[in-house]
Amino acid sequence: MASSSLTLSQAIFSPSLPRRGSSSSSSPSLSFPIFSGLKSTPFTSSHRRFLLPSTSFTKQQLSVRASAAVETLDKTDAALVEKSVNTIRFLAVDAVEKANSGHPGLPMGCAPMGHILYDEVMKYNPKNPYWFNRDRFVLSAGHGCMLQYALLHLAGYDSVQEEDLKSFRQWGSKIPGHPENFETPGVEVTTGPLGQGIANAVGLALAERHLAARFNKPDSEIVDHYTYVILGDGCQMEGISNEACSLAGHWGLGKLIAFYDDNHISIDGDTEIAFTEDVSARFESLGWHVIWVKNGNTGYDEIRAAIKEAKAVKDKPTMIKVTTTIGFGSPNKANSYSVHGSALGAKEVEATRNNLGWPYEPFHVPGDVKTHWSRHTSEGAALETEWNAKFAEYEKKYPEEAADLKSIITGELPAGWAKALPTYLPESPADATRNLSQQNLNALAKVLPGFLGGSADLASSNMTLLKMFGDFQKNSPEERNLRFGVREHGMGAICNGIALHSLGLIPYCATFFVFTDYMRGAMRISALSEAGVIYVMTHDSIGLGEDGPTHQPIEHLASFRAMPNILMFRPADGNETAGAYKVAVLKRKTPSVLALSRQKLPQLAGTSIDGVAKGGYIVSDNSSGNKPDIILLGTGSELEIAVKAADELRKEGKTVRVVSLVSWELYDEQPADYKESVLPASVTARVSIEAGSTFGWLKFLGDKGKAIGVDGFGASAPADRIYKEFGITAEAVVAAAKEVS
Amino acid sequence: MASSSLTLSQAIFSPSLPRRGSSSSSSPSLSFPIFSGLKSTPFTSSHRRFLLPSTSFTKQQLSVRASAAVETLDKTDAALVEKSVNTIRFLAVDAVEKANSGHPGLPMGCAPMGHILYDEVMKYNPKNPYWFNRDRFVLSAGHGCMLQYALLHLAGYDSVQEEDLKSFRQWGSKIPGHPENFETPGVEVTTGPLGQGIANAVGLALAERHLAARFNKPDSEIVDHYTYVILGDGCQMEGISNEACSLAGHWGLGKLIAFYDDNHISIDGDTEIAFTEDVSARFESLGWHVIWVKNGNTGYDEIRAAIKEAKAVKDKPTMIKVTTTIGFGSPNKANSYSVHGSALGAKEVEATRNNLGWPYEPFHVPGDVKTHWSRHTSEGAALETEWNAKFAEYEKKYPEEAADLKSIITGELPAGWAKALPTYLPESPADATRNLSQQNLNALAKVLPGFLGGSADLASSNMTLLKMFGDFQKNSPEERNLRFGVREHGMGAICNGIALHSLGLIPYCATFFVFTDYMRGAMRISALSEAGVIYVMTHDSIGLGEDGPTHQPIEHLASFRAMPNILMFRPADGNETAGAYKVAVLKRKTPSVLALSRQKLPQLAGTSIDGVAKGGYIVSDNSSGNKPDIILLGTGSELEIAVKAADELRKEGKTVRVVSLVSWELYDEQPADYKESVLPASVTARVSIEAGSTFGWLKFLGDKGKAIGVDGFGASAPADRIYKEFGITAEAVVAAAKEVS
Repeated sequence: MASSSLTLSQAIFSPSLPRRGSSSSSSPSLSFPIFSGLKSTPFTSSHRRFLLPSTSFTKQQLSVRASAAVETLDKTDAALVEKSVNTIRFLAVDAVEKANSGHPGLPMGCAPMGHILYDEVMKYNPKNPYWFNRDRFVLSAGHGCMLQYALLHLAGYDSVQEEDLKSFRQWGSKIPGHPENFETPGVEVTTGPLGQGIANAVGLALAERHLAARFNKPDSEIVDHYTYVILGDGCQMEGISNEACSLAGHWGLGKLIAFYDDNHISIDGDTEIAFTEDVSARFESLGWHVIWVKNGNTGYDEIRAAIKEAKAVKDKPTMIKVTTTIGFGSPNKANSYSVHGSALGAKEVEATRNNLGWPYEPFHVPGDVKTHWSRHTSEGAALETEWNAKFAEYEKKYPEEAADLKSIITGELPAGWAKALPTYLPESPADATRNLSQQNLNALAKVLPGFLGGSADLASSNMTLLKMFGDFQKNSPEERNLRFGVREHGMGAICNGIALHSLGLIPYCATFFVFTDYMRGAMRISALSEAGVIYVMTHDSIGLGEDGPTHQPIEHLASFRAMPNILMFRPADGNETAGAYKVAVLKRKTPSVLALSRQKLPQLAGTSIDGVAKGGYIVSDNSSGNKPDIILLGTGSELEIAVKAADELRKEGKTVRVVSLVSWELYDEQPADYKESVLPASVTARVSIEAGSTFGWLKFLGDKGKAIGVDGFGASAPADRIYKEFGITAEAVVAAAKEVS
Repeated sequence: MASSSLTLSQAIFSPSLPRRGSSSSSSPSLSFPIFSGLKSTPFTSSHRRFLLPSTSFTKQQLSVRASAAVETLDKTDAALVEKSVNTIRFLAVDAVEKANSGHPGLPMGCAPMGHILYDEVMKYNPKNPYWFNRDRFVLSAGHGCMLQYALLHLAGYDSVQEEDLKSFRQWGSKIPGHPENFETPGVEVTTGPLGQGIANAVGLALAERHLAARFNKPDSEIVDHYTYVILGDGCQMEGISNEACSLAGHWGLGKLIAFYDDNHISIDGDTEIAFTEDVSARFESLGWHVIWVKNGNTGYDEIRAAIKEAKAVKDKPTMIKVTTTIGFGSPNKANSYSVHGSALGAKEVEATRNNLGWPYEPFHVPGDVKTHWSRHTSEGAALETEWNAKFAEYEKKYPEEAADLKSIITGELPAGWAKALPTYLPESPADATRNLSQQNLNALAKVLPGFLGGSADLASSNMTLLKMFGDFQKNSPEERNLRFGVREHGMGAICNGIALHSLGLIPYCATFFVFTDYMRGAMRISALSEAGVIYVMTHDSIGLGEDGPTHQPIEHLASFRAMPNILMFRPADGNETAGAYKVAVLKRKTPSVLALSRQKLPQLAGTSIDGVAKGGYIVSDNSSGNKPDIILLGTGSELEIAVKAADELRKEGKTVRVVSLVSWELYDEQPADYKESVLPASVTARVSIEAGSTFGWLKFLGDKGKAIGVDGFGASAPADRIYKEFGITAEAVVAAAKEVS
């Protein structure tokens, strides 16, 4: 067997056999022949795609190689693995030490599993971190980011060079204090806030399962990758992880493999003080396959065997509980909280170097370790090349599916998609914007191949069902209605994972607007990590009526308007709802929140899709020369009230402009002259009306304007009565307008 | 055995034996003799307090009665129970029907367990819903509130009269669309947002366990009650419930008994579509005792036996999974989502009446049912009277403990408590406000008997440990440091439960300020339900440095300033931190959030505890006549920067006022003349500086002012560098001041 023909399979299947002295011979696959003989391959294993035409493996040999490596290494090989693992440990130790800030404990304990994943198990192309069919890795315990940075560095990712390691946690560094996908290519999602990563991983695995079900053919598994995640005790305690893992079990996401770094230490000390549940039993109750690796510090073969077993279980996600020692190798700080989140200190670094027999300078990668890892560059390129060839084949045979998949991979929206958006005339029937939203969702799902989503057990209230599709379930993963159950936080984070899986996957998710309070952690990560999730938030004000103040959002509009990189829409009718969806679909790097009414609203004259794109625009005006007597501003369900008030005032001879401020963020982006044309500085008689907190409205009202809103909690009663009692009425607007003009 | 001597024990211990024709003879306990023979009672059972001096029960008889009733009823008795249960069902059906809004399904399914709890098991005094030693009941599935309202009505609570039932969900009604403690005496906490209630119940049970451990004596169990909760599938899916239940298991809260209404239906249909985990196994993994009642619809004795078993397990909380039929009795809608959240409709109400053999008019309570329940008024009064007598005894023997317990029960703070707050001089050492906070926490814990709290696994970062106390744990429940693990949302809701247990329990809880995003659902309920929880939120800005944007709050100050009934404090130094705590302790019906710095800050001249009470005040001024050239406004860590900028500007000959706006809400409450004295309308040259979103600042700046802040996400780097790069500097303030003046 020629060593060149082994190269690819070694990267993925085999124990990480160091090819001594073969550093240059490990790159022949750069000119790897495109393989096109898949059809005739008799194996049904999902791993057959890696077979090389020149191999002469027996079926049995292949079945051993076609899983994570499990063979025990010989002594020399084992020594090199150990050296690689210690390299990872010391890169982490040294970077944290130089920054005098960071978390060395996790990388030191998790280096063995990290090594096995990146060196022996995962398929990826370090020179193209965005290659579609790569395995995904998520470090849910994001504080241990130096583990991932060290691995990316060894694997050959351009994003983490030696100088980057030396600038860890510094201004302008490419490797910040927690993993951030928008800073560091090779990092899939943004973690640090605990529990987000495992939930993201569920989303990534869901995306894979969905796309595989939709696009794979009996003769071509064009979508096929695993999602790996490392989570710690902290992640396990968070409710979001139970939510997401309950769903992963329900959905049977067999290609999701989670490593639970069971080190018994969290910031406050031993987990005994607050965390004595039986995590393995809990995961079993959630429908997961559970494996326990008792020696995660040096039990490489145990880890390898666990991965093999996990891959063999295809109908359940697997949690591998790996018992490790936090800060492994540090003679005085290992197994204590002191190694969790601070630099070891020069003395203890020295002691650790002695303890682990590490004679090298800080940041040094020994030559044989470097050589060993160097093959990933060529092998990764080969993997991608092979997949590209496979895709070319696929495209020939299945042009329609290929076009859809391509759109999902590249994020390029199908030409003319926006024409599918419904439009409305003033004479169109009055309707709740939640219902109009459903018309939009269903229109979009027809034209956007990557559009999918659902609700946290409120589909029939949020009006989010896609009528032409069934439910995404264990046995129908090709469908597009996601059923999240009552798990808002998990839902948001799962959608982040879906959105960050492929540029053209456009997930939406839904609950009552007030319950954004349950999922705000995930929504902020959407904004930060540039995940263009669409949040469909119905029952958007006191207008929901009888359910009362626990269900009535007040401060929520303001709270999202204050959040960076998220678009807060409050559409007033059908055209504005369509306009909000148009922007939301286009903005793939900015999440959108649509606040939608439970109650029926009329289709207003003057609203438009184009107007929404500007965030604020004139809906009606009976003045000339950009100098109305009064400007009335409204959003959503209260734009109708502003329009009514304007009618009243006009009857009394006033010139009145009505402005819809459907998205403050988009309005803020407009050029000054446009803003002046909508809200001329000279017109200070302004009144706003919105059934929510008045907080922030002064920005558009100026010192002389008046805001009508709701600054206390709501009430349980029919909506009309609440509006009247709270003074959210046309009469109140008219009175305020007279006061200010 | 005289029937009069049975009266009290019947209320609590015995099967609800209807005393036919004895409606008048059931009230002798109104003149119940004060029992003072506890000392000589040989029984060690926790139930001995109910022994009546005139009884001649054998020990064995008592031990049967001293638990939930389990005997099988005779036929006539059983018929009356059934009738009572149907009364509950139809009160719910009728109220929802009249409102044409609400959730009949849960009350119809849970009426049997509701009946048994309120009629046979729980001890309470309907005429004093706030009697300290009552059993607590929480309807975590709050949408089913008509169950609780019906029970309160039957039990004789004044808060739910027949006319209230008829005004369900209407303006001004005392029984709103979800249970609200501040509207309906007899409702302990505010539920509806799913999962909050079970977490509140954990807090209530924690409070009982803590107070019992601190105050009970070998000869007097002065604190002794159960906490019961009903939760549904929705609550079970929420992450918050897993968080709280994991803690309840860890803490071994044996007197917490949760009924899981296992009806297989949630809003979106059968729970099969999103919720297939093994809930019982999960709870066992969390350390709970689990019992399954397979027939919750008619299996009264099964329910009774389960409660008996639950009470016998003293070291674990118990979950009783009760399989029920949602909408039980409705021939066409039972067991479907259509009965969950809508009125049945006249036709189906009729069909249900026929099906269950219910000939009565809407809202009718049959005479024998009324009679049966009427004894709770006298028996409840007797319970309280007996407890009062017991407390009088206790007070004589243990005056110090009694004084502390009294303070906890009444909420009356010990005289002079505020003198314990530390004060600082400008020459006092610079320190992070998180450290200054710890000085305050420890000072307060010495003088406030009901002060307790902790952190979500960040005690050593949030600086929240009370040094004179140990950890509240299973075996040390008398201690006051709570260890919540990484469970922010559960922590907040548990603290709500603690705060609402007794007026004088003052819980605080802590995490990084940015992670309020994880617990906002609970914090909003603090605000709505008037639970004076103190939120100690450290690492309050980009000033936390290297952890980066995932950990750096930006919009959070604005988001809480917009929330009703919550005080957002951002103290600048020691005196302001003390001032914030002073208000936070006093405001028992308003939660407070303290945003505290990670970084060291100087003690500023001019700051004061009294100033904080006004929300905004002048820290320094070199002008006269209330007419400075410029006003600089700042909060927290940036007040120092404002002070520095003022020094610069004064050097250049300007008159400058520096104003601390430590709490916008408190400032807003001040009279107009005070506000004019701080921010005179005539002075329009104003600059604000705060390391957070500028959203909302215009309110204090006016059209001509300028806000310096951070409107995008933060960065990972040392804090000083970030401040410089983001322009949060004295130079920037000086420049802006020149621009606006």
